[in-house]
Amino acid sequence: MEVLLDFGARFVHQLQSPTLAFLLGGILIAALGSRLTIPDAIYKFIVFMLLLKVGMKGGMAIGEADIGAMLLPALIAVFMGCLIVIIGRYTLALLPGIRTEDGIATAGLFGAVSGSTLAAGTVVLESEGIPYEPWAVALYPFMDIPALVLAIVLASVYLKKKKDGAGEKVAIWPIVKESLQGSALSALLLGIALGLFTNPDRVFESFYEPLFRGLLSVLMLIMGIEAYARLNELRRVAHWFAVYAAIAPLMNGLIAFGLGTIAHYLVGFSPGGVVLLAVIAGSSSDISGPPTLRAGIPTANPSSYIGSSTSVGTPVAIALGIPLYIGLAQAVFGA
Amino acid sequence: MEVLLDFGARFVHQLQSPTLAFLLGGILIAALGSRLTIPDAIYKFIVFMLLLKVGMKGGMAIGEADIGAMLLPALIAVFMGCLIVIIGRYTLALLPGIRTEDGIATAGLFGAVSGSTLAAGTVVLESEGIPYEPWAVALYPFMDIPALVLAIVLASVYLKKKKDGAGEKVAIWPIVKESLQGSALSALLLGIALGLFTNPDRVFESFYEPLFRGLLSVLMLIMGIEAYARLNELRRVAHWFAVYAAIAPLMNGLIAFGLGTIAHYLVGFSPGGVVLLAVIAGSSSDISGPPTLRAGIPTANPSSYIGSSTSVGTPVAIALGIPLYIGLAQAVFGA
Amino acid sequence: MEVLLDFGARFVHQLQSPTLAFLLGGILIAALGSRLTIPDAIYKFIVFMLLLKVGMKGGMAIGEADIGAMLLPALIAVFMGCLIVIIGRYTLALLPGIRTEDGIATAGLFGAVSGSTLAAGTVVLESEGIPYEPWAVALYPFMDIPALVLAIVLASVYLKKKKDGAGEKVAIWPIVKESLQGSALSALLLGIALGLFTNPDRVFESFYEPLFRGLLSVLMLIMGIEAYARLNELRRVAHWFAVYAAIAPLMNGLIAFGLGTIAHYLVGFSPGGVVLLAVIAGSSSDISGPPTLRAGIPTANPSSYIGSSTSVGTPVAIALGIPLYIGLAQAVFGA
Repeated sequence: MEVLLDFGARFVHQLQSPTLAFLLGGILIAALGSRLTIPDAIYKFIVFMLLLKVGMKGGMAIGEADIGAMLLPALIAVFMGCLIVIIGRYTLALLPGIRTEDGIATAGLFGAVSGSTLAAGTVVLESEGIPYEPWAVALYPFMDIPALVLAIVLASVYLKKKKDGAGEKVAIWPIVKESLQGSALSALLLGIALGLFTNPDRVFESFYEPLFRGLLSVLMLIMGIEAYARLNELRRVAHWFAVYAAIAPLMNGLIAFGLGTIAHYLVGFSPGGVVLLAVIAGSSSDISGPPTLRAGIPTANPSSYIGSSTSVGTPVAIALGIPLYIGLAQAVFGA
Repeated sequence: MEVLLDFGARFVHQLQSPTLAFLLGGILIAALGSRLTIPDAIYKFIVFMLLLKVGMKGGMAIGEADIGAMLLPALIAVFMGCLIVIIGRYTLALLPGIRTEDGIATAGLFGAVSGSTLAAGTVVLESEGIPYEPWAVALYPFMDIPALVLAIVLASVYLKKKKDGAGEKVAIWPIVKESLQGSALSALLLGIALGLFTNPDRVFESFYEPLFRGLLSVLMLIMGIEAYARLNELRRVAHWFAVYAAIAPLMNGLIAFGLGTIAHYLVGFSPGGVVLLAVIAGSSSDISGPPTLRAGIPTANPSSYIGSSTSVGTPVAIALGIPLYIGLAQAVFGA
Repeated sequence: MEVLLDFGARFVHQLQSPTLAFLLGGILIAALGSRLTIPDAIYKFIVFMLLLKVGMKGGMAIGEADIGAMLLPALIAVFMGCLIVIIGRYTLALLPGIRTEDGIATAGLFGAVSGSTLAAGTVVLESEGIPYEPWAVALYPFMDIPALVLAIVLASVYLKKKKDGAGEKVAIWPIVKESLQGSALSALLLGIALGLFTNPDRVFESFYEPLFRGLLSVLMLIMGIEAYARLNELRRVAHWFAVYAAIAPLMNGLIAFGLGTIAHYLVGFSPGGVVLLAVIAGSSSDISGPPTLRAGIPTANPSSYIGSSTSVGTPVAIALGIPLYIGLAQAVFGA
């Protein structure tokens, strides 16, 4: 009962968070017939700024990490990012009435990682006195980026096949290359390279980081205005997204917990690290993922993937997931 | 004599303030034949950012206020906002040679509220030791927003009538709806809704608030460049705007002082609150109003309303108005 | 040997600095076939923001300086700014295979001033205990702005002559006027006027200053993407730019040191001031100059002038120039 109340409180809190509030605001004013629009040049620049920032942050996190010790956990993170997308592609995206690209985009967002869910996980671990490797938080780009890239590639393959006819054999590599050269992944990969090989700290902290949340709020508004036109087609299948968003975080977290436990016995990955890996896998991206998907899979309906992640996935991942993994760790490792 | 010197110093100070300086800078470079322009996409985005911020701030102020106790003062504020616009519409806007939409826009700006004049009022009240209700500063959106909305609606009605011929009956409601759905009032109302019903504090303080003054300076420059092309038509009637800008602040402030005194005897509104109500009514918006009017009454000449408000109205409101209302309060209430 | 190691370290450090890193990043993604572009409206607005800020900063520095005492040093600074551009125009820009506008733009950047080189100079002077006039740092706009303006005018004259045929006599004044009315110099001069005659401190410090480095990084990226298309033509003559970038800082610094010494004997300009004048003349602009040249000489190849300045000129000016002038000052003045 307390868990349900706690979940309800988090749910209402999420609805008031700027991310979802601006999305709902955009839907609302579009529904009321407003002529407010954000110029396309601004939209493109905002997406560029957000993706460059996400990439730089990931690149800097990788650069500061202890690559040797984190090798196996990082491989597990990459594997989980891909697995989550593949599972989603062959379950959610095949359900009746669901547009395949909406399903793939949603799976991509659940494969991607929420920084705030990760932060919540570290806070709970510290209050429980469970230690973890400092570099464990740097695992997130290893799951986040492959998941987003794979989702975009799978969607491109699907859309290309649909256009050319089902009988045609689709060459994968040109699509991967095309995806990587698109403006979304170009900006993301450029950001990673800048974060890894150069010293962007000063410009990152004075410009890209402080502008991030604000530009994201504008993007959410744009996505809300857009989403309104597509609400009708979504309404018929909203229950499938809700079911997926409730089950996927816990399932993904538990698979990652199992793989992390193997790493514990093989290379001494700490119990706290295993919990964080599960938290990362269980989280879905509310902030860094949506702009990437919006630019990489432009035909997918933002209200499907953002709605699933922000309004159901994140509350489940925090309120149910984190206590679950910590309880498991205490049972399995005696942490 | 000292009052005149003080007024002169404030006048020169206002000319050097960023708001007016960027406006004059825009006029200057346009006069010198510069080819500098700000892209239209940037202009539209800046207006959106400014109006959303003004709306959010108003919404948050309303949300934090003690609605019960402030009911009557808030109604007076709404009434004053409308009254100032209506008086201006049937005096200034009817004077010979003055374009009606310029007169209405100017009245709208004098009905709207200047945050810095309000701040100056609170500082003087505190230094004089006159107490006031904490929510009194939250009265400003109750005067500001109705004044701007009414000015835009009155101008739309006028322009529609002019276009369709004077004999036609104009349906008011479609124009009100059209005004509210326009990009200016949509952004303003969306901001109010976000401020009232969600928790935008973090994104507000990290993004919308710090960017406000800077984006405003760019907007002022754009408005200055535009105003230059229209200076000729304004020069013939500038004296009427100067007369209005010198009289209106004190007249509006005194009416509000009288209505506030009634609220004092009816519901115990504090003497300091009465002074603040008069300061709010006497102030004219230098910052939040111009972008709204620029977007809502695009055919009005910005140099008429901004010039009137910033170069004459605000110095009069601060240097003459505030001491006047405080002296009155001490005489009437023995404060 | 130590000097060479120090130079090498500074060279690598410069390659990782955000300015050059974003330029190289732009070249890299263009080379990899990325479709990432920054909308033109954003590009124009960024250039405007950067130039307005550079102008405001110069204007404020001039406004705060002691004009009487700094008259002769300021005249020397203006003279040096022009001289550096003229020398470059009749040496580098005439070399075989070098496009004349690339040579003029590069000379313009070496005539312009690097704020960070200047800052490094003041730090070394203070650690050596050599005093200098506080206003000496305000000499920089007197060299910076004339150099950039002259480079743009010389390039315009050259391009006009080339277009109309070599035999035609070119009227200089219309080109100067045209250059000054262009969007680049308009924004720069407007900024100077705002910095000199108004009080933009608050909006400068809350908006233009903090956004500067970030917007510059975006501009560098745009310039890198552009530069890639022109790399072929540059590769054949890169050695000339490297030679110029290695020689010019020391030569320019020594000429300024000689002129400063004359000012020392005529008006008592301090030895530390003479060193700073040489440092200013020896520095090349990595930050404020490129946007001005990009907008003022659009046909010049950014990789020529930015590459020369950032990768060779600045390390030479700091690692070799500053110790050289300080040693000279100690020898000449016994400072």
